[in-house]
Amino acid sequence: MTSTPEGAPLRSDAAIRVDRWLGRFEAALAAGDVEAAAGLFAPESFWRDLIAFTWNLKTVEGPAGVADLLRHTLGHTAPRGFMIDPAEPAVEAGGITEAWIVFETAVGRGRGHLRLQGDAAFTLLTTIYELKGHEEPQGQRRPRGVVHGADRGRTTWSEQRQRDAAELGITTQPYVVIVGGGQGGLALGARLRQLDVPTIIVERNERPGDSWRKRYKSLCLHDPVWYDHLPYLDFPRNWPVFSPKDKIADWLEMYAKVMELNIWTSTACKRASYDEQTGEWAVVVERGGREIRLRPRQLVLATGMSGKPSMPTIDGMAVFRGDQHHSSAHPGPDAYRGKTAVVIGSNNSAHDICAALWEAGADVTMVQRSSTHIVRSDSLMELALAGLYSEAAVASGITTHKADMIFASLPYRIMHQFQIPVYDAIRKQDAEFYARLEKAGFLLDYGDDESGLFMKYLRRGSGYYIDVGASELVADGRIKLHSGVSVVRLTERAVVLSNGVELPADLIVYATGFGSMNGWAADLISQQVADKVGKVWGLGSGTTKDPGPWEGEERNMWKPTQQPALWFHGGNLHQSRHYSLYLALQLKAREAGIATPVYGLQGVHHLS
Amino acid sequence: MTSTPEGAPLRSDAAIRVDRWLGRFEAALAAGDVEAAAGLFAPESFWRDLIAFTWNLKTVEGPAGVADLLRHTLGHTAPRGFMIDPAEPAVEAGGITEAWIVFETAVGRGRGHLRLQGDAAFTLLTTIYELKGHEEPQGQRRPRGVVHGADRGRTTWSEQRQRDAAELGITTQPYVVIVGGGQGGLALGARLRQLDVPTIIVERNERPGDSWRKRYKSLCLHDPVWYDHLPYLDFPRNWPVFSPKDKIADWLEMYAKVMELNIWTSTACKRASYDEQTGEWAVVVERGGREIRLRPRQLVLATGMSGKPSMPTIDGMAVFRGDQHHSSAHPGPDAYRGKTAVVIGSNNSAHDICAALWEAGADVTMVQRSSTHIVRSDSLMELALAGLYSEAAVASGITTHKADMIFASLPYRIMHQFQIPVYDAIRKQDAEFYARLEKAGFLLDYGDDESGLFMKYLRRGSGYYIDVGASELVADGRIKLHSGVSVVRLTERAVVLSNGVELPADLIVYATGFGSMNGWAADLISQQVADKVGKVWGLGSGTTKDPGPWEGEERNMWKPTQQPALWFHGGNLHQSRHYSLYLALQLKAREAGIATPVYGLQGVHHLS
Repeated sequence: MTSTPEGAPLRSDAAIRVDRWLGRFEAALAAGDVEAAAGLFAPESFWRDLIAFTWNLKTVEGPAGVADLLRHTLGHTAPRGFMIDPAEPAVEAGGITEAWIVFETAVGRGRGHLRLQGDAAFTLLTTIYELKGHEEPQGQRRPRGVVHGADRGRTTWSEQRQRDAAELGITTQPYVVIVGGGQGGLALGARLRQLDVPTIIVERNERPGDSWRKRYKSLCLHDPVWYDHLPYLDFPRNWPVFSPKDKIADWLEMYAKVMELNIWTSTACKRASYDEQTGEWAVVVERGGREIRLRPRQLVLATGMSGKPSMPTIDGMAVFRGDQHHSSAHPGPDAYRGKTAVVIGSNNSAHDICAALWEAGADVTMVQRSSTHIVRSDSLMELALAGLYSEAAVASGITTHKADMIFASLPYRIMHQFQIPVYDAIRKQDAEFYARLEKAGFLLDYGDDESGLFMKYLRRGSGYYIDVGASELVADGRIKLHSGVSVVRLTERAVVLSNGVELPADLIVYATGFGSMNGWAADLISQQVADKVGKVWGLGSGTTKDPGPWEGEERNMWKPTQQPALWFHGGNLHQSRHYSLYLALQLKAREAGIATPVYGLQGVHHLS
Repeated sequence: MTSTPEGAPLRSDAAIRVDRWLGRFEAALAAGDVEAAAGLFAPESFWRDLIAFTWNLKTVEGPAGVADLLRHTLGHTAPRGFMIDPAEPAVEAGGITEAWIVFETAVGRGRGHLRLQGDAAFTLLTTIYELKGHEEPQGQRRPRGVVHGADRGRTTWSEQRQRDAAELGITTQPYVVIVGGGQGGLALGARLRQLDVPTIIVERNERPGDSWRKRYKSLCLHDPVWYDHLPYLDFPRNWPVFSPKDKIADWLEMYAKVMELNIWTSTACKRASYDEQTGEWAVVVERGGREIRLRPRQLVLATGMSGKPSMPTIDGMAVFRGDQHHSSAHPGPDAYRGKTAVVIGSNNSAHDICAALWEAGADVTMVQRSSTHIVRSDSLMELALAGLYSEAAVASGITTHKADMIFASLPYRIMHQFQIPVYDAIRKQDAEFYARLEKAGFLLDYGDDESGLFMKYLRRGSGYYIDVGASELVADGRIKLHSGVSVVRLTERAVVLSNGVELPADLIVYATGFGSMNGWAADLISQQVADKVGKVWGLGSGTTKDPGPWEGEERNMWKPTQQPALWFHGGNLHQSRHYSLYLALQLKAREAGIATPVYGLQGVHHLS
């Protein structure tokens, strides 16, 4: 960087352009001039706000969307202090000027990201990372730990922890109950603990991590380590790229302990109901053989984004004499050595289970009913993830937090445009691999618009397999394949397909997917509440299993729903980590009595 | 930084000076010209080598010392590639030019630090951080975790872990046995695990961390969090400044688990003997009620730098009818509410125990036999530690690793010169505090040469108290004090002092310190081996409890001893973290069959 004669660093052209835009934007906001602010956005433009203005996760489009957002939020938000993050220089490339920004509102401190096309905003991201007066005790603010001095009434850390744990839920009430102690529940629980929001996590298993431990033995994370960090505590530099299930389970158990989470293990959540008058949930759990009634103000379902297992109804299911179960209930392959297995489905679970059964010495047939998107794990790492989540990214200064923010800065509406070339490159690089799969009869797709795996994940959460080895077994016939068929009926000992083939079977695994997460609400609360909330997950892209209209954000995830005080949390480790921050701040604001007027509460277009 | 017209950055004067020195040094080494190399050092100068040239921790002084070191080591070390660390600019201040350097040897890669006075070396630090061909699996080299592909003989991570743990020590032998599973043993164990050196840690308690958990309840770390990180896994940013004992215990337990250490808990180490012929130890441990004989090649004692408790012999100890025990066996104050306690001693343990007894409602008297150095914890943080280990240091780019290296770069011989002004400042700032203590009769000192706490720690490991509250109790008489006296005898119910005072007592705590760590070797191996090894800890400074001659490094710590294959490891968390690297590399080199000719093996001048 060069300097002026006085020694002050010169501003780059990019910085000057961003400064000018931010100055105009702030002036318009300060003047309450909604039209002027909206006029700073390009005709095709996107403002994504994560709770800073909207107390919602919300993307608006174009000047009209910006104006509408501001008309409803500007009065109480009181935004100010927009400037380029001093730690991050603005940059210009290909006609787009980019900058990380900071700002504040009446109640919080924010970070964001701006992309300018010429002098007009193309994308704006605004987020709140902390609430004024409720800053997390980190770094300079970390707790002292021990209270120096002499005190005859001293309570030690462990006495206090034991007392709190013994009282919470019994003589004192948690503000939040989180149902589910997987990575989602733990990440959110850790943030709420730091924000001093009394919280109980209810987990049906005996130990944190059991939701991983209890699954089939070859399971591992399909996402690499750089993508998987939990809040506050990164995996160490010697952690494996792909965590084996028992290792990630041990980490989660440790995490719950060192983060001092109040997790009720071996506890089943039986039912919940909301009293609109008192604003209180009655959540009945079974713990240690007796029912306990918790009365939190907020209820979070973190029971897995996959929702409830979808079991098909097939003629003859009652007469089949072998074992049959949904993939989520599959106990692993050990009992099926030398047996004949039929796996119905062709996505991640189907492939993993087929491979594990084959490894255990079973005779395995996969029944593929419709096309599937396959990406080799190595290719995904190299071509789709490496820029943001890799050792090279870390080395070039893209921390996990920064990668999360870059990802958040890309509007869902145009994300597929960035994804299509990635998957074009993967198809080209792995052409021979795909050709062999097709030769074996496997039906491939790359998404309705060729945008690949991540868009499928965001739109429908299914329809793909990240290949860690099973595809070779399919390609060379070690896993037998029948594709483009359906199952018409079962006999006592076989599966009968629509092409007339009869597959003998000792075991049938239904890898037939999962319903929407509001199914959990139906079970736990009521069908009425599940319908009031509507479908969870998906963007409204109008592609397969993600019907329109366009929603702009993931349906019902990490944000207010039509049911007051009911929240859905989860997703992959990246989402659990990043969005748990905004969900935790929404909950903290309510607990602290901060006004949280929600702009653009999502409507319900689909029930499941 | 300015640039040449061609765009290459200009070298600073400091960098040019360092480049020139390194060039001459390397040329002299390459030519085998020991005298020329030695001539590059100032008359008063220090070269500290941590295993790079010497396979020892060794400081030599002046050109003559440098020449001697090189005459014995240059031939096999083959050092080369000395250059300024590209990530760290050389700097000049007050006539001293400083630079971080990198280099390599025939077998390892090194980092170091150089201080020039004019053009002559004043201090040089050389260290090895990894052995070629034995690099740790971190970052780019981290393990993949899961093996992709299909394999009918697949062994999962957890199966492999269980198998390894079941076999090691039973059907296969560890290369190293570490006695003691506190922070020292765990830190070393973690490094050896990363270096793939089969290791068993033997710990007498039921759970890792119990050596903290089982102590008195108000115990906390007296060193702040920035000083306390373990290798590979930093405490998170929300970790308290001063860890309560149970919290650090939980962390250690978690650490042992996620680092996949083979720790045999509830296992007592009974005896050990070394067979010079086979180069093998026979280490007999009692585990699960039966004796198991381990046969490692290397034995590490990590049983606490404090060594065995020193109990005084006092007339009447057999007739005293109350409780009496050494401070290390003190069960905590709970049983002594309303009782009368006499604590003999006035260092850390004495103060902590007096305060805890007072808090519990006991009547407490401290018997101070000789002067003690007191520093308020806050002052120590502010004036002694903040530059290297604090939130501000971290913010200014001084990572824990860098702080460790800066500390390592200061020769012990002159360290007190840097410490004296720090404690002068503390005396001035806390003058009123010290005056009140003296008024209460407390005998203060600041070290034989006024160099304060850290030098006392390095020289004798005792003689001080980091005040976290007890001194106020002493100053205002809530803890009663008798100073400048000794205990002459006990009666059935009282302690009789040399000044004739008779103190009634229900409890006597002997906070009378600890012996040298070779006492553990005497118990475990033999008195003969303990004497062969000699005194452990201390610099030979010729100050109280640290008799000369000058040793240059801590006696017998983290380096070869006169007993082949016997090592001492420990110290505070900083030392356990930093020196565990060099000890681990010494062990790995031996395991890998790399020649490790030791230069300057320490002689024995004191038996204990």
